[in-house]
Amino acid sequence: MPIKTIEWIEGKVKIIDQSKLPQKLEYIYCKDVETLGEAISSLKIRGAPVIGIAAAFGVVLGIKKSSSQNYLSFQKEIEKVIDYLARSRPTAVNLFWSLKRMRNCAEKNKDKQIKEIKTILEKEALQIMEEDKRCNRQIGENGARLIEDGQTILTHCNAGTLATADYGTALGIIYRAKQKGKKVKVYVDETRPLLQGARLTTWELLREGIEVVLICDDMAGQVMQEGKINKILVGADRVAANGDVANKIGTYMLAVLAKENGIPFYVVCPFSSIDLSLPSGKEIPIEQRDSSEITTFLGKRIAPQGVKTYNPAFDVTPAMYIKGIITEKGIHQPPYEKSLQRQD
Amino acid sequence: MPIKTIEWIEGKVKIIDQSKLPQKLEYIYCKDVETLGEAISSLKIRGAPVIGIAAAFGVVLGIKKSSSQNYLSFQKEIEKVIDYLARSRPTAVNLFWSLKRMRNCAEKNKDKQIKEIKTILEKEALQIMEEDKRCNRQIGENGARLIEDGQTILTHCNAGTLATADYGTALGIIYRAKQKGKKVKVYVDETRPLLQGARLTTWELLREGIEVVLICDDMAGQVMQEGKINKILVGADRVAANGDVANKIGTYMLAVLAKENGIPFYVVCPFSSIDLSLPSGKEIPIEQRDSSEITTFLGKRIAPQGVKTYNPAFDVTPAMYIKGIITEKGIHQPPYEKSLQRQD
Repeated sequence: MPIKTIEWIEGKVKIIDQSKLPQKLEYIYCKDVETLGEAISSLKIRGAPVIGIAAAFGVVLGIKKSSSQNYLSFQKEIEKVIDYLARSRPTAVNLFWSLKRMRNCAEKNKDKQIKEIKTILEKEALQIMEEDKRCNRQIGENGARLIEDGQTILTHCNAGTLATADYGTALGIIYRAKQKGKKVKVYVDETRPLLQGARLTTWELLREGIEVVLICDDMAGQVMQEGKINKILVGADRVAANGDVANKIGTYMLAVLAKENGIPFYVVCPFSSIDLSLPSGKEIPIEQRDSSEITTFLGKRIAPQGVKTYNPAFDVTPAMYIKGIITEKGIHQPPYEKSLQRQD
Repeated sequence: MPIKTIEWIEGKVKIIDQSKLPQKLEYIYCKDVETLGEAISSLKIRGAPVIGIAAAFGVVLGIKKSSSQNYLSFQKEIEKVIDYLARSRPTAVNLFWSLKRMRNCAEKNKDKQIKEIKTILEKEALQIMEEDKRCNRQIGENGARLIEDGQTILTHCNAGTLATADYGTALGIIYRAKQKGKKVKVYVDETRPLLQGARLTTWELLREGIEVVLICDDMAGQVMQEGKINKILVGADRVAANGDVANKIGTYMLAVLAKENGIPFYVVCPFSSIDLSLPSGKEIPIEQRDSSEITTFLGKRIAPQGVKTYNPAFDVTPAMYIKGIITEKGIHQPPYEKSLQRQD
């Protein structure tokens, strides 16, 4: 039974404070949108799918105390909340997808009483969460057939339970393969600067009894060159219409090394991570984060004063390096311009 | 004036404790071979060229108190010291090259008085250090002509002043280019797990007034993809006769990414790092280091208990990715089987 990364409990969003893992399993109860927004921008909750879910609940929290008597005034409040949440992180498209869905939901019900609209929005957010759970299971099912018994997978960052409502995307495939009786071993990149691989992915894989080998990011090439890796599975924060993928910084590097070493490289995400409005990865906005993430570690300075840094949180992997994009709809293969258009 | 990484002062080896940088500039005075050997294996002093120098002084320290009256007994003592030092680190060939040179020096003078041989060995160690200094300057001269005004270089780990007796190898080229009036900017990979890039390379480049941008290792691909890098310069711990290069883990990854992005990738080292006895990189022994380097950080645990790790300190970059190997003898180009045979 996977741990619950996000829950809606008595009008509060209960989330795991992922910045404390693996030392402590602590929860944050967000009763207002500001607490939730801060949790997103400070990466206490992270991972494209679960950010989408959190944002939906954020809208519910944001309009909870609204005393608007008419839709026009209520709409203004919703837009303010959406605008606030939209500024929490720029790259993962699920955030915007989810906020848009909440906006549309309100709009569709604008003729109802404000109180009723609030209830409908709460249901919509719960629905988004439930859909993510089902979606995770389906992704796991779709991807698990690619994994052969005894294979070794390399992954980067965290595309698991902690990035979703339930089961994970890339790691969901591994969990499902294991359930089907296949033995799987996983190499995990530590994923600098914030060590989501070392802190989160190892933690959840070990909980599920999966053999894990932690490496530093600069060891991934050597591990591939030594023939230790059969497949690479990573998540995605946004996929463009041509199949270019924005994902955690370091993903592009793995994709190039995979090609060079003849290792199949797969991207795993819900279809809501696919942004058909963007023709290519060039249009995906890449979040730049603070210098201190690189120059300090656990609050201690590691680099000399005065050093500049460059700290993109994501990179873009061109579609040409990607063997397949696994979503709840199936395994999309090149040419992605065609295969991603499938709207089941 | 570069800082002195290693000095021979009144019968002691004075070294910078590089594990304390950049927070503190502290020195260790090694008066016996054990202190020096420990400093090498714990990476208080690191970098292939300076390890070679340190080992030579290590031999001098090790036989300092010898009371042998004849060469046979003295030789046994030397062999014991050499054997001890040879076990301090396995990959950098300069260590073995230097120990062999000290052995040969003793052998050549075996008919002399033991006291005299001791003095000759001390001179030989000093000679090795002086040669490294001259060699560094010549490497800088040879490489600087490749650097154009305004270019941006990416480097990994530390192949600078702190890895040599004087001026550095890869960084020596940058220092020389700057002296010649060229503006150079340097991107530095932090170089996990021990952060030689973040702690040492940034520190010495900033001291020399060079513009530095620190990145995490998993950002190097993105930085190349964005067109920010003109050339890559790295050091080497051992080069095989066919031009395969063992260097700090992560080097292979950079080489592959460089090829993919059309960026020239150069290896810079003294000719003493070239091991013509090994036909290819496959024969280079790769040091595996302790798990705690990855699972803990500044003494604090970052990964969950029970996680396995894989921690190779070096990787091997096949010669096909290397545009040139820059030594004091010039710029060796493919095919390396031929160009490395030059014995000037």
